[in-house]
Amino acid sequence: MTLSDIGSLLGWKIPSGYEGEISGINTLKESVSGEISFLSDSKYEKDLATTNASCVIVPEAKAHLLPAHVIPIITEEPYLMVAKLSKLFAKPVVDSDREPSIGDNTIIYPTAHIEKGASIGAHCTIMAGVYVGCNVTIGDNVTLYPNVCVYRDCTIGRNCLIHAGTVIGSDGFGYAHTKQGEHIKFYQNGNVVIEEEVEIGANTTIDCAVFGSTVIKRGTKIDNLVQIGHNCIVGEYTILVSQSGLAGSTTLGRNVVMGGQSATAGHLTIAPFSTFAARSGITKSVTKAGIYGGFPLMEQKAWLKFQAKLAKLFHV
Amino acid sequence: MTLSDIGSLLGWKIPSGYEGEISGINTLKESVSGEISFLSDSKYEKDLATTNASCVIVPEAKAHLLPAHVIPIITEEPYLMVAKLSKLFAKPVVDSDREPSIGDNTIIYPTAHIEKGASIGAHCTIMAGVYVGCNVTIGDNVTLYPNVCVYRDCTIGRNCLIHAGTVIGSDGFGYAHTKQGEHIKFYQNGNVVIEEEVEIGANTTIDCAVFGSTVIKRGTKIDNLVQIGHNCIVGEYTILVSQSGLAGSTTLGRNVVMGGQSATAGHLTIAPFSTFAARSGITKSVTKAGIYGGFPLMEQKAWLKFQAKLAKLFHV
Amino acid sequence: MTLSDIGSLLGWKIPSGYEGEISGINTLKESVSGEISFLSDSKYEKDLATTNASCVIVPEAKAHLLPAHVIPIITEEPYLMVAKLSKLFAKPVVDSDREPSIGDNTIIYPTAHIEKGASIGAHCTIMAGVYVGCNVTIGDNVTLYPNVCVYRDCTIGRNCLIHAGTVIGSDGFGYAHTKQGEHIKFYQNGNVVIEEEVEIGANTTIDCAVFGSTVIKRGTKIDNLVQIGHNCIVGEYTILVSQSGLAGSTTLGRNVVMGGQSATAGHLTIAPFSTFAARSGITKSVTKAGIYGGFPLMEQKAWLKFQAKLAKLFHV
Repeated sequence: MTLSDIGSLLGWKIPSGYEGEISGINTLKESVSGEISFLSDSKYEKDLATTNASCVIVPEAKAHLLPAHVIPIITEEPYLMVAKLSKLFAKPVVDSDREPSIGDNTIIYPTAHIEKGASIGAHCTIMAGVYVGCNVTIGDNVTLYPNVCVYRDCTIGRNCLIHAGTVIGSDGFGYAHTKQGEHIKFYQNGNVVIEEEVEIGANTTIDCAVFGSTVIKRGTKIDNLVQIGHNCIVGEYTILVSQSGLAGSTTLGRNVVMGGQSATAGHLTIAPFSTFAARSGITKSVTKAGIYGGFPLMEQKAWLKFQAKLAKLFHV
Repeated sequence: MTLSDIGSLLGWKIPSGYEGEISGINTLKESVSGEISFLSDSKYEKDLATTNASCVIVPEAKAHLLPAHVIPIITEEPYLMVAKLSKLFAKPVVDSDREPSIGDNTIIYPTAHIEKGASIGAHCTIMAGVYVGCNVTIGDNVTLYPNVCVYRDCTIGRNCLIHAGTVIGSDGFGYAHTKQGEHIKFYQNGNVVIEEEVEIGANTTIDCAVFGSTVIKRGTKIDNLVQIGHNCIVGEYTILVSQSGLAGSTTLGRNVVMGGQSATAGHLTIAPFSTFAARSGITKSVTKAGIYGGFPLMEQKAWLKFQAKLAKLFHV
Repeated sequence: MTLSDIGSLLGWKIPSGYEGEISGINTLKESVSGEISFLSDSKYEKDLATTNASCVIVPEAKAHLLPAHVIPIITEEPYLMVAKLSKLFAKPVVDSDREPSIGDNTIIYPTAHIEKGASIGAHCTIMAGVYVGCNVTIGDNVTLYPNVCVYRDCTIGRNCLIHAGTVIGSDGFGYAHTKQGEHIKFYQNGNVVIEEEVEIGANTTIDCAVFGSTVIKRGTKIDNLVQIGHNCIVGEYTILVSQSGLAGSTTLGRNVVMGGQSATAGHLTIAPFSTFAARSGITKSVTKAGIYGGFPLMEQKAWLKFQAKLAKLFHV
């Protein structure tokens, strides 16, 4: 697809100046030549000067920050424009012709569905109704319980165990909004990377990244009905108890503990070895390890004191 | 089934006077001739005088409000009686002989199960392990990711995208209670109607209506692990973030935003363009659009002020 | 497996004195001759003197409390040791050669998977994509909707109805922790027992017990997206509304009502006929039936008063 194809398909007036194939969309920082990027949040302005993208969707006032070799595509609604564009580059469900490769001593139940391009290691058990998407890579000694679904391009390290009904790599919840209040889907490009020795409970959901990867690091244990948003990074040996949730792009350090029904806002960074009691509501980054609780979040000791005061006040 | 059959099957003494077939159960307002209706909540008393039902289960004191052509069936526990009756009219899993109709260029994976009477449009992708129930109607260009389950009679509009493991049309959570504390299932009659351009995340659940339809209107986007109770109406272009929940019979206007883990009580009406922060607990109807948060619900500004005060109080 | 085999496999120095086969791991109270038990929590110290286990993993200071015929295996980290040991006794996915037995008039969809050793009663409907594990027992007149997963050894009583995507018997969330912060899985031995007349909604999860059974008693109704931890006992005719959660080893009496998004901590006992409003957070045992709400938990009346005060304070 060339810039002029894109222009025709979407009915946009696009400047000439780059005649090659456009291979995809990416962030300013990660783009390579041939890709389109975009500026939708001023905190990435600093990446304009050094991007390797061939074209950048950008508001007029920021176009002068681009290097001379980059074609600016001017709009006052860059996020909306790139969302519309993302549909043209949406990945198909399957785009490999390679028969799946299955390791020795791996058991695959007859009702499991393994797409082309998938690679499954040795000594795995892929149970009934499991779906393993295109180009998924699974290490040795992994058990996927019934009806687990792994979307395309995700990777699962060795010795992982994923319980029934869990979904890995569903689309992140990302939309641009029109002035009329419609939501335009930003088609997701990324994947989920699950490192080794991770256990995940039943009916949990982990969304793929918009670009790059949502990452669950080595040795982390996740309970049932947990939600992990797109582009989260979950540190090593972290514990996420049932019905907890991480909004998109939040990073947990290693050995974080999130109690039952606790949750974080998006785009936070949580210090390693932090512990959050059940029902904690985390709306700001946490820079110092400690034991926290409550909503608003406070030290768990203060939260217990607050609870005791309330209880006294109401004669519980 | 006639009234006297029902009497025999349930061991009830039922008045004579209507000899025709009883075709089903319905609300006072929606009933047609041949149906049984019931009065279990005094707020529907006004519908007694105008009902088209042939028979109505009603407490003795209200029977005089019925038109002369309607047979009253007297009980002081009408909801319990109608729940017991509902079992006789429970829909079977399949009651069609019509081979499913599948549109052009639609891909159906071999482990998907499509029941008789279903209609699937063109250019759809029905992935592995999907279940499409009897008489379900699916529009063009719909993708159902692996292991999605659509119960009988539901409809899904064109251009919808439903992620893995989501369940559409499971029974609403409705029971009558005996004096001994047992719960008698009210078999659900209704369906779910999903209009066009709706996207639904992974492992979400949307219950069917008791009577009529649970409705998700055009352009709405629903995240993972969301619960939508029976008979909810979700307005156009609404956004429901992960782990939020709507209790039964709540109506959201268009362009409502429900943050992560927020929830509403049942039987509420929420003004269009209302926004609720994460964890909001909505226990009353909201008549004026605004940005709300907290539990009890307040304006989000007040909730932030309250949080700041608490935080100060406890030296966070 | 003998004690000396275990020593070799795990690289442990184990005392001699018991030469027989070790048949498994169990609690101090439930162990029989041939089993290994352990003391990881001082509240079980009283069970040391009367255990029938052949060997007990125990800290040095407590070993003298064991009867003379019991071999002590000394460690200062007994829970860690028994977790490592549990892997050797982990149950395989299937260990029966018996063809499943299926009752009369039971319908099993072609994409359901029934493991060896399972027994399914008469007049059941086992729908598409359902998984019924090894040695599972299902009573008469049970409906399992699409993609329900029942792990090995669980039992489901007659007249139960389980909605799509629900997972019964997934592993409890139990780990021992090393000083380096790694989590060692405690392989789960137990099962889930669901008595008769129970209805369970869609995408709910019920974990199996570490030892013994997680139990859902007769006539209980459970909504969608509910989490029930390992070793919970849910009393008769209890109601668990959507998105509520029970942490491990909590016991609910009969006719308890848990509102939407409410939750309990672990190891609690809740009085029969207690009602908890939506969002209740229950952190202590409840000994007296009543209507409770809030977090901290208080009488619902007090909670409503507290909410009203807050609302007034913030001019809602």
